[in-house]
Amino acid sequence: MTQKKFQRMLYGGDYNPNQWPEETWSEDLRIFKKAAINSASVNIFSWAKIQPSEEVYDFSELDKIIAMLTADNYDIVLATATAALPAWMFKKYPEVGRTDYEGRQHKFGQRHNACPNSLVYQKFARRIASKLAERYGDNGNVTCWHVNNEYGGECFCENCEKAFRVWLQSRYGTIEALNEAWNMDFWGHRVYEWDEIVLPNALSEGIGYDDTAFAGISLDYRRFNSDSMLENYKMERDAIRAFDQETLITTNLMGTYKNLDYFKWAKEMDIVSWDNYPSYDTPPSYSAMCHDLMRGLKEGQPFMLMEQTPSQQNWQPYNSLKRPGKMRAQSYQAVAHGSDTVQFFQLKRSVGACEKFHGAVIAHAGHENTRVFKEVADLGHELANLGDQLLDSRTKSRVGIIFDWDNYWALEYTSGPNKDLTYVDQIHQYYQAFYDKQIAVDMISVDSDFSQYDVVVAPVLYLVKAGLAERLEAFVQQGGQFLTTFMSGIVNESDNVYLGGYPGPLRNMLGIWVEEIDALAPEQFNHSVFADGSVFKNNLLCDILHLEGAHSLASYQSDFYAGTSVVTNNQFGQGQAWYVGSQLEPAGIAHIVEQLAEAAHIKSLTKEDSGLEITTREKAGETFTFILNFQEKAQDLPVEFIGKTDLLSGEMLTKETSLASFDVVILK
Amino acid sequence: MTQKKFQRMLYGGDYNPNQWPEETWSEDLRIFKKAAINSASVNIFSWAKIQPSEEVYDFSELDKIIAMLTADNYDIVLATATAALPAWMFKKYPEVGRTDYEGRQHKFGQRHNACPNSLVYQKFARRIASKLAERYGDNGNVTCWHVNNEYGGECFCENCEKAFRVWLQSRYGTIEALNEAWNMDFWGHRVYEWDEIVLPNALSEGIGYDDTAFAGISLDYRRFNSDSMLENYKMERDAIRAFDQETLITTNLMGTYKNLDYFKWAKEMDIVSWDNYPSYDTPPSYSAMCHDLMRGLKEGQPFMLMEQTPSQQNWQPYNSLKRPGKMRAQSYQAVAHGSDTVQFFQLKRSVGACEKFHGAVIAHAGHENTRVFKEVADLGHELANLGDQLLDSRTKSRVGIIFDWDNYWALEYTSGPNKDLTYVDQIHQYYQAFYDKQIAVDMISVDSDFSQYDVVVAPVLYLVKAGLAERLEAFVQQGGQFLTTFMSGIVNESDNVYLGGYPGPLRNMLGIWVEEIDALAPEQFNHSVFADGSVFKNNLLCDILHLEGAHSLASYQSDFYAGTSVVTNNQFGQGQAWYVGSQLEPAGIAHIVEQLAEAAHIKSLTKEDSGLEITTREKAGETFTFILNFQEKAQDLPVEFIGKTDLLSGEMLTKETSLASFDVVILK
Amino acid sequence: MTQKKFQRMLYGGDYNPNQWPEETWSEDLRIFKKAAINSASVNIFSWAKIQPSEEVYDFSELDKIIAMLTADNYDIVLATATAALPAWMFKKYPEVGRTDYEGRQHKFGQRHNACPNSLVYQKFARRIASKLAERYGDNGNVTCWHVNNEYGGECFCENCEKAFRVWLQSRYGTIEALNEAWNMDFWGHRVYEWDEIVLPNALSEGIGYDDTAFAGISLDYRRFNSDSMLENYKMERDAIRAFDQETLITTNLMGTYKNLDYFKWAKEMDIVSWDNYPSYDTPPSYSAMCHDLMRGLKEGQPFMLMEQTPSQQNWQPYNSLKRPGKMRAQSYQAVAHGSDTVQFFQLKRSVGACEKFHGAVIAHAGHENTRVFKEVADLGHELANLGDQLLDSRTKSRVGIIFDWDNYWALEYTSGPNKDLTYVDQIHQYYQAFYDKQIAVDMISVDSDFSQYDVVVAPVLYLVKAGLAERLEAFVQQGGQFLTTFMSGIVNESDNVYLGGYPGPLRNMLGIWVEEIDALAPEQFNHSVFADGSVFKNNLLCDILHLEGAHSLASYQSDFYAGTSVVTNNQFGQGQAWYVGSQLEPAGIAHIVEQLAEAAHIKSLTKEDSGLEITTREKAGETFTFILNFQEKAQDLPVEFIGKTDLLSGEMLTKETSLASFDVVILK
Repeated sequence: MTQKKFQRMLYGGDYNPNQWPEETWSEDLRIFKKAAINSASVNIFSWAKIQPSEEVYDFSELDKIIAMLTADNYDIVLATATAALPAWMFKKYPEVGRTDYEGRQHKFGQRHNACPNSLVYQKFARRIASKLAERYGDNGNVTCWHVNNEYGGECFCENCEKAFRVWLQSRYGTIEALNEAWNMDFWGHRVYEWDEIVLPNALSEGIGYDDTAFAGISLDYRRFNSDSMLENYKMERDAIRAFDQETLITTNLMGTYKNLDYFKWAKEMDIVSWDNYPSYDTPPSYSAMCHDLMRGLKEGQPFMLMEQTPSQQNWQPYNSLKRPGKMRAQSYQAVAHGSDTVQFFQLKRSVGACEKFHGAVIAHAGHENTRVFKEVADLGHELANLGDQLLDSRTKSRVGIIFDWDNYWALEYTSGPNKDLTYVDQIHQYYQAFYDKQIAVDMISVDSDFSQYDVVVAPVLYLVKAGLAERLEAFVQQGGQFLTTFMSGIVNESDNVYLGGYPGPLRNMLGIWVEEIDALAPEQFNHSVFADGSVFKNNLLCDILHLEGAHSLASYQSDFYAGTSVVTNNQFGQGQAWYVGSQLEPAGIAHIVEQLAEAAHIKSLTKEDSGLEITTREKAGETFTFILNFQEKAQDLPVEFIGKTDLLSGEMLTKETSLASFDVVILK
Repeated sequence: MTQKKFQRMLYGGDYNPNQWPEETWSEDLRIFKKAAINSASVNIFSWAKIQPSEEVYDFSELDKIIAMLTADNYDIVLATATAALPAWMFKKYPEVGRTDYEGRQHKFGQRHNACPNSLVYQKFARRIASKLAERYGDNGNVTCWHVNNEYGGECFCENCEKAFRVWLQSRYGTIEALNEAWNMDFWGHRVYEWDEIVLPNALSEGIGYDDTAFAGISLDYRRFNSDSMLENYKMERDAIRAFDQETLITTNLMGTYKNLDYFKWAKEMDIVSWDNYPSYDTPPSYSAMCHDLMRGLKEGQPFMLMEQTPSQQNWQPYNSLKRPGKMRAQSYQAVAHGSDTVQFFQLKRSVGACEKFHGAVIAHAGHENTRVFKEVADLGHELANLGDQLLDSRTKSRVGIIFDWDNYWALEYTSGPNKDLTYVDQIHQYYQAFYDKQIAVDMISVDSDFSQYDVVVAPVLYLVKAGLAERLEAFVQQGGQFLTTFMSGIVNESDNVYLGGYPGPLRNMLGIWVEEIDALAPEQFNHSVFADGSVFKNNLLCDILHLEGAHSLASYQSDFYAGTSVVTNNQFGQGQAWYVGSQLEPAGIAHIVEQLAEAAHIKSLTKEDSGLEITTREKAGETFTFILNFQEKAQDLPVEFIGKTDLLSGEMLTKETSLASFDVVILK
Repeated sequence: MTQKKFQRMLYGGDYNPNQWPEETWSEDLRIFKKAAINSASVNIFSWAKIQPSEEVYDFSELDKIIAMLTADNYDIVLATATAALPAWMFKKYPEVGRTDYEGRQHKFGQRHNACPNSLVYQKFARRIASKLAERYGDNGNVTCWHVNNEYGGECFCENCEKAFRVWLQSRYGTIEALNEAWNMDFWGHRVYEWDEIVLPNALSEGIGYDDTAFAGISLDYRRFNSDSMLENYKMERDAIRAFDQETLITTNLMGTYKNLDYFKWAKEMDIVSWDNYPSYDTPPSYSAMCHDLMRGLKEGQPFMLMEQTPSQQNWQPYNSLKRPGKMRAQSYQAVAHGSDTVQFFQLKRSVGACEKFHGAVIAHAGHENTRVFKEVADLGHELANLGDQLLDSRTKSRVGIIFDWDNYWALEYTSGPNKDLTYVDQIHQYYQAFYDKQIAVDMISVDSDFSQYDVVVAPVLYLVKAGLAERLEAFVQQGGQFLTTFMSGIVNESDNVYLGGYPGPLRNMLGIWVEEIDALAPEQFNHSVFADGSVFKNNLLCDILHLEGAHSLASYQSDFYAGTSVVTNNQFGQGQAWYVGSQLEPAGIAHIVEQLAEAAHIKSLTKEDSGLEITTREKAGETFTFILNFQEKAQDLPVEFIGKTDLLSGEMLTKETSLASFDVVILK
């Protein structure tokens, strides 16, 4: 398969002309042109319109839209429209709807409402994707297929229950293997026939949405549900491929969204795309981590920023305006971390329904004389000037942080020791320490080739699947630096504990044994005292551990385990294995990461503590350095960059150059 | 129709002798007489007793009760008993019960439990109302019919779903009109047949009880549900009218209760009645606003205070006793704002079930030697002394504040910009400013004749139905003062945005264009700086607006829109249109309202800042002035009233007269 | 029936070898022996394993386990395994599952999942109990039968609904009596046929899980549900007794667990056993109260501590480790209050499912080299040294505090006056005052023989069943001291108010009349001023009362009832009746309890205010004194104990002896 590639940086977003009278379309395009918009995502929620009944398809309106965009040489991102079922389908085939966690079958409404295991839904979805590909697949302006939209949610209907049993048979082979994997003799759960198994929702194993009596079952249900939707995606993808072998196919992901194992999904996607919706108070390091995760899904391949809002969301509790310059800064942050597109949801605000207050390029005012449009247009022209020089450039990182959906699920299902422990927050704490030091990070999977990194960090590596410990050991033995934390090495893929002492299969490499795990209530804390005399608060969980070869970097200051180690380091082969036995305050994590980077001879991009975000992309021997100021005040540039020229302004940086709040420079 | 009128101020309340042995009734009446009670509401929840089975009716007990009250010349408020279904009806016809928002069909229990669209319920309710009217309609002591009780709640059963479709057909005519009204091409919702439409509950469009994916659908459901219950009311009313053409017919309302459009309901009621249950910390201005709203439902016609507690509620979290004098003060507050009755729930405390701790005239102690009874009795005799001189007197207001249920519903369904925005709170903030200045206010509907007012205030006039903007413009052009706020002029009756720029149809009159609406999180605020140098905090939402003819009264102090206008005034014809672009702290609203009143040459009833509530009612050329002290300390009377005589005490007010906490004077 | 008695103090706990390979069992026993463990509870959740299908039973594995334990002379606590249904039973007979409060029928999952009124469940449960008793009943090492496990929860299915009607017919005889008991004429609830009655859940009378429109119905449902499960217990017990007339039969209770009336249950149990799971911040007085309650269930008979964790729970929000010594201290606290066993959940940690992080004697590390094991082993040997001298010793108390499930249920169903009022907290406030003074307390039922006590305390004795007031009067008349509080004497067994004045049937003895009950919001309080000038905060509820013979001990300081009595004392016959009309701060309650103890000539075990827990058990004329230090710091022993010898250490206490944190001495 020789796939088409992007010929330019896509700048545009979701466009819904079929919600508006045809006579208004040309005015839209006039305005888009003023903003140098060159791309549009269309047909996203049009199923009910292009298929008014079971046997009738009507592409007349879509034909016009495609023709219009083609005539203006847009890059068209063409959606398959399957993310919201037509009402007639619900009426005739109620089984297409989902049954929720509470066991309630839903009727027509909202979106993302299809049962992934409904054969009726599958039939109709495959057919519409097929018809669209047949009709538009050879249009050269169709640059990308956008399958469905923001896959997510879950279904607990009887069809899913039956499909789950089939999935389990394929996974376990025998009922005995399943009983063992789920430790079914606990609470007398042993099953003898496959059809004794039921879905783990509020009517069976579920204890509130987030907890479960049997993590093994619920974990498999999450895998099954992710796989079920992935099968939906693959089915549409294959239907498209039957008519169009060249165009990129994607579906838009959602960062750290919990329900789907995106590493598994990305394998089936030609290019990753995602929707970035930070809240007014989301730290920039969090957005950066999400971008790096999206880039990591396909091992560094550039991705698409499929959606962001030009200014305001509508569905957050407090939908602040993006301050002047913030949207531009966030757009360049995406590019800095690997995006080859800057796309908005949405190009034009809806007149009604729940997203009508969501920001758009064309506001309800209907014209271009708005602050937001001006910023969109300025950015459009700036990107146009930049041209394709950044396109397909790559990020080089010597640090990998493991992100793993199995772990995410398993850790958060765990009953005990501390309910406040959440997965993404733990990952972000370590990511942030590198971010603050301007050290590039790849977000990697447990299946990554660790040898390409000097440092691998795996906070709360609770679930360690077969073979992983051995691969990590090999990495360290060959000179790598590996860091992990409390609640690591605890369970296997089925959430069964590795017996013999925590951290199980990681114990040998780490040179420690964790005898006990103390849980601290929110009002409680301890302190970690380092050899250099620095002291940091720690809380949440406190491992009580024994050194088995490792040496201590820091010890607890108080409580009955005062003086025992909380942070350790173990020489293992050519490398070192680090362990952090409690949740340290950010400065404490920074302190550890500093030592870790030193051990790996990794340096920050600047020695100054500027608070700036500084990252690079490389292409054909050229390095592009992105410097962003997410602080509220202007910031002088580090001395390293004086004398270089900013690609955006064309100006040379001098001693006097200071970067305003939300300002950006790109240096080559 | 020549309706009977009240011949005296009704003083009494809910009485439930059928819960007690007959031999106790005479003792009750002996006690009531000591309190000068002259009225009783009976038969409210007696359906199961007067109709023990489908075919049997038994009025023997009710006959005795009516006869007893008639013999003692009570004004009888006779209820139709339909607000709680008999258990036998549930058993035989389960469909009479409601299906809740979660989609669960309810079984027998509680009250207000009838599906409004159940034909079975309708048949039985009509029949019992008819039989009661036939039997008691010509009793001269039956002064008022009390249909059902506190209509409310909602139903999502299949019968309601079908009835909703019929209601929609009647509203929209064609499915195309409905698709447009609901903006159904958003999220591919287009329907082709009426029976594709489902009720918007948790199983379809609902997102938690308070939110919805399609505000247009949910808004129509609220209208439909309000109408369905109104049809229930009208059905009973008409059944009564077939036998009794003269007696007033009402049903008791609940102030700002959200689910029913009381302005629409009041058109079908002969007299408004309502139940007033402030909490221990409800500000008196809030109760005053509710009274004025109830008076406004029928354009100033006096209303009935149908229920209040003599001292304590039972269903609030903290059911404080009413301090000595507070019940009297609250009673006179009702009268001051237009009530011609003072009625309690309840005359006698129940022995069991969930309201047994609800205050009553006769406590569980069973006798009259209680503080609460003494206060009830003192008030009864005081009212008796007052006689009928206040009866049917009217309130004159030059200020109207718009209250609109469509707006209430639509505003609170809106997804974005700020989840903390609620309707009634916004209305009350402006009401309170007038209240604190002792300026009389009418609570009016969007259909009111504005020309009777000098000032019309419409906070958050989010939904502007067809014709309203024109009528407001005419009002201002002819010299009126109109004030509105942020989130106004946004949508039409179907919650579709008025395109072209906020505040849509109000923009011309206001002389502004609101380009953006910033949402502030709870920890954020800005300041509004007025021309006179006064500065007030503002928060919640901040409009960023352009002057298009209006002049600025105040500007933002900080953020990127510092210096732009937050409060504006526009000369429009002979009048002025005021706009307040953010939520100002109370002192800021007071500052604006002061200027507004000045512009309309409206003066406070006193120049002193006494903190007293001062209002008037007029009748036959006489003006009655009510002065109430809801403060915790005694308060000197403003000089304006010195020399006048208090109708209650008969004493002349002197310089030394001070009004104790919770005390009242009425001046003529 | 001549029952077997314990021959030694049981030390051990839940053991689940059937979750582990047979070859690991001997290693377990080797480790247990090192801890002097002499007892194991087995077969608790093994139903699915010993009955793989409807017709097949397989005891081969259990035979081995029993044989192994017998060979090592374990005291075996043999469970009937009926607390978790096999999956096959759900598949074939879905009705065995429960229907929850929301009306949802559950599928297979979790545990405690049997509908108590399912005939299918009953048949199978009876049969398995019977087979186990037949097979193992004559094994001399089977010391105790453990029926089911932690009975609890509830069911709202149709079978239960029908059974409820039968239960009601038996309770009330006629429908008329039921209508009166439930005050059904309130809200028109009168029923005419038994089958009009429905269960009071979310689909009928329930208002959220904790509230109800008809407390009478919900109260009866609680009684019915407790009785239904008790019938399940009795059914299994009787099935066992058919084969084994000698062995003790129990089921493990849960302290103040709300759903089951444990006083009624205890009558059917040979010995009480219970599971003690304090949180990290549970005050030791609370655990002490629970122990005393468990001892009180069978009027002082020693009980079994069936479960506690060696260190950590898993299901609490913050599962702190038990600090060194804390487990030992908690174990001796159980013994000090009447336990004849110290048993753990669990002897070995599970490898998977939701309790895998629950503490155990054998940790996941799998060996004995852990702090926790060492503490378990030290305690085991200490207990072994202690021998049987404490076995079957008794506690002597002159103070009884009434705990009553009817009251618990009724008080918490009450709508009003203050939602923050909870039953157990009120009881504990008074318990704590005695605990702090080292005065022994028996927790007693309303049916206890009060004459064995000098003082009876009954906080919030809201529900007073027939005959109770008379029995309390007799107690006081004969010289007893009786204390009760606000919200007492309000309702009868059906939650109908005693008319004529609060506190109803207690009024005569207390010599007061409570006219009003004020409810204070959380930010509000008053002060109680005592005759000696001491002043204490009070809040929550404030009775406004009249003295009718009683004299005042303290008065309110402020509000409109300032100066009226809040604490009173009434001489009644030879004794005194005390009343506390508000919730006083702990020091205030201590102040009252001091006077109360003085009046009864009851003295603390020491005059020193040491903060130590000091209690006694007696046997054959010997008194054992237990002194425990639950404080964080070491504490000198009171002078009274100097010169005595500690049974545990064998050392004599001197002036210098100080008790470390969590340390214990036992003196004879």
